[in-house]
Amino acid sequence: MQDAPQVGELTPPNRTLMGPGPSDVNPRVLRAMSTPLVGHLDPSFIEIMNEVQDLLRYTFRTDNKWTIPVSGTGSAAMEAAIGNVVEPGDTMLVPTNGYFGGRMAEMARRAGGEVVEVDAPWGEPLSPSAVADAFDEHQPDVFGFVHAETSTGVRQPNVSELTGIAHEHDALVVADSVTSIGGVELRVDEWGIDVAYAGPQKCLSCPPGASPLTLNDDAMDKVLSREEPARSWYLDLSLLEGYWGDERAYHHTAPITNVYALREALRLVAEEGIASRWKRHERMAGALKAGVKAMGMEMNAPDEYWLPSLNAVRVPAGVDDGTVISRLLDEYDLEIAGGLGDLSGEIFRIGCMGHSARPKNVTYLVNALGSVLADEGADIDAAAGAEATAEKL
Amino acid sequence: MQDAPQVGELTPPNRTLMGPGPSDVNPRVLRAMSTPLVGHLDPSFIEIMNEVQDLLRYTFRTDNKWTIPVSGTGSAAMEAAIGNVVEPGDTMLVPTNGYFGGRMAEMARRAGGEVVEVDAPWGEPLSPSAVADAFDEHQPDVFGFVHAETSTGVRQPNVSELTGIAHEHDALVVADSVTSIGGVELRVDEWGIDVAYAGPQKCLSCPPGASPLTLNDDAMDKVLSREEPARSWYLDLSLLEGYWGDERAYHHTAPITNVYALREALRLVAEEGIASRWKRHERMAGALKAGVKAMGMEMNAPDEYWLPSLNAVRVPAGVDDGTVISRLLDEYDLEIAGGLGDLSGEIFRIGCMGHSARPKNVTYLVNALGSVLADEGADIDAAAGAEATAEKL
Repeated sequence: MQDAPQVGELTPPNRTLMGPGPSDVNPRVLRAMSTPLVGHLDPSFIEIMNEVQDLLRYTFRTDNKWTIPVSGTGSAAMEAAIGNVVEPGDTMLVPTNGYFGGRMAEMARRAGGEVVEVDAPWGEPLSPSAVADAFDEHQPDVFGFVHAETSTGVRQPNVSELTGIAHEHDALVVADSVTSIGGVELRVDEWGIDVAYAGPQKCLSCPPGASPLTLNDDAMDKVLSREEPARSWYLDLSLLEGYWGDERAYHHTAPITNVYALREALRLVAEEGIASRWKRHERMAGALKAGVKAMGMEMNAPDEYWLPSLNAVRVPAGVDDGTVISRLLDEYDLEIAGGLGDLSGEIFRIGCMGHSARPKNVTYLVNALGSVLADEGADIDAAAGAEATAEKL
Repeated sequence: MQDAPQVGELTPPNRTLMGPGPSDVNPRVLRAMSTPLVGHLDPSFIEIMNEVQDLLRYTFRTDNKWTIPVSGTGSAAMEAAIGNVVEPGDTMLVPTNGYFGGRMAEMARRAGGEVVEVDAPWGEPLSPSAVADAFDEHQPDVFGFVHAETSTGVRQPNVSELTGIAHEHDALVVADSVTSIGGVELRVDEWGIDVAYAGPQKCLSCPPGASPLTLNDDAMDKVLSREEPARSWYLDLSLLEGYWGDERAYHHTAPITNVYALREALRLVAEEGIASRWKRHERMAGALKAGVKAMGMEMNAPDEYWLPSLNAVRVPAGVDDGTVISRLLDEYDLEIAGGLGDLSGEIFRIGCMGHSARPKNVTYLVNALGSVLADEGADIDAAAGAEATAEKL
């Protein structure tokens, strides 16, 4: 058996986070995390829970009673959504146009559901006609789509049209809003979304660990009338209802500090105003986009479904994406990411999220990226990029 | 749709946490949580992951390679253990002597397992003979027991004897060590425990959100040779192996800040030395126990299976437990808890865990409890209690 390991003080490097998340965290949120704890059943914590639920409703643009932070990272909120709404024997329709549709399928199968697919290439949104065709063919009980695809930088337009098709077929709609919440226009109620889950570490700029989830009454009715319980006890919403609902009964120990952090991150959203925040993301990411285009690079997504929070930029010819990413990290303490799946090696994924969506970060990113690409021999005009970004900021 | 909620600065009360967890957090751990984030795939974070795994092995007293923090609170680690080790059609033997055996049963059923029980009253440990009988009768594939029962204040003795019985029957042993890790002697390898899960917010005094789990090769072999995947994608250890194992491939976004916190909390364990830490808990809780006994109260558990980290104290005659608990919270900012299940209304549950297991907290607890009980008309001698505690500290 080993002796006590010699582990030194925590001194991680001071990164600038412009990848697919986490984003830079506002110092106010970091400070909130150093607050001493109260118990998870303390009356003062119940009050904090109420405040977080109110702030989440505001941010999701919903009046849903069942709006809570799930005790885990974004994938836990995703599994809470799918694992509760999909019952054994149900059919779930999922998209094939990115990494996270595949994860939806995996979770739906483990929940005991059948999976059917609506196709679109990686880097394209779903078309309403393809969704309508899939509904006619498969008659699914649940339809999942990704509002903001972190793997491709695509924003799904026409959400109301998609939900309308689903509701004509009496299906519930589950929206992945991990990379849109708090940064890109998202209107859960107005757009007819029944269930939405999200991550805190993207446009909310909150450390991961407590993840937003909202369900309307239709969805919650299905959850509460299941014939057999959800397959996860930890994520069973009929049990979590006891803790986050009127009863406030013990289910599991909530991640108290993460709830503190989420509260502060959401207060920042409320102070800025949700619509102003969406506009800021569009402006900051717009300056970033102008810069990379002026350098001579291409965005992977056309403007009509460009996702401001996640900019997929085509890797210039003759350049190795991994080398560029490593050099940015090593020489500039700057994180961006490469492509996944079908887009591996073809795109850079550059986040512009929350506290990272500000002039200082965008300016730094465009300048650093331009320098490294030029140094790697890419046929780009770094100076033109920097100038175009500066003009837009 | 509501306007932006008006939510003020985070100002929770300044509690002294002497309940069943969370315990008071050391300021060094709180400070670690205000550290800016790096990405969950950053090379510097990989190094931090290695350090946390080493520190967890030290604390669990194991050489198990598969030793990780699960991305959720203690119940997530519990479900990761049971949901991966129990396959559909397996039989799991669980205890009936406390609240958490019932939770084991619930999770085993949802994993597709059959549940059989080994009986002991609430407030008693399991006897090896009852376990042997249950094995002979049911031939279970998996045996779960609770090393430190938070609901009853009972420490399970004879662990090696229990695991020996299980291994003679080729069963795997899963130990709930939520309330023992880092505070009460626990030797995973020496005692023949195959799988152990824990919580960070008890004797490790770390905010909840990343929870210790360890599996030996026998257990991991079973997990990796399952015929059908675990029912939770989020907690599937065969997938988490990709992230925490040699590959370090993306599975889900780790709760980075919680990992920072756990690292600092475990550094404190390593600095103190695990055996010294066990002794400190015994000494501090011993002073607490001497105080409540000198006042004239009774412990629910006899000394031979007393659990220092969770002291179950019989509620004196004529006193309402809820009133005492509320007054301690309101008048003393001091958290303790009442009984659960079969012991509801009969015991106070007083934690003595991690950073809360120190003279200042124990002295405050004994004095405050004595004052409130006397004021409520209990037949106790508060002064004698305070004196007995002071002598032992």
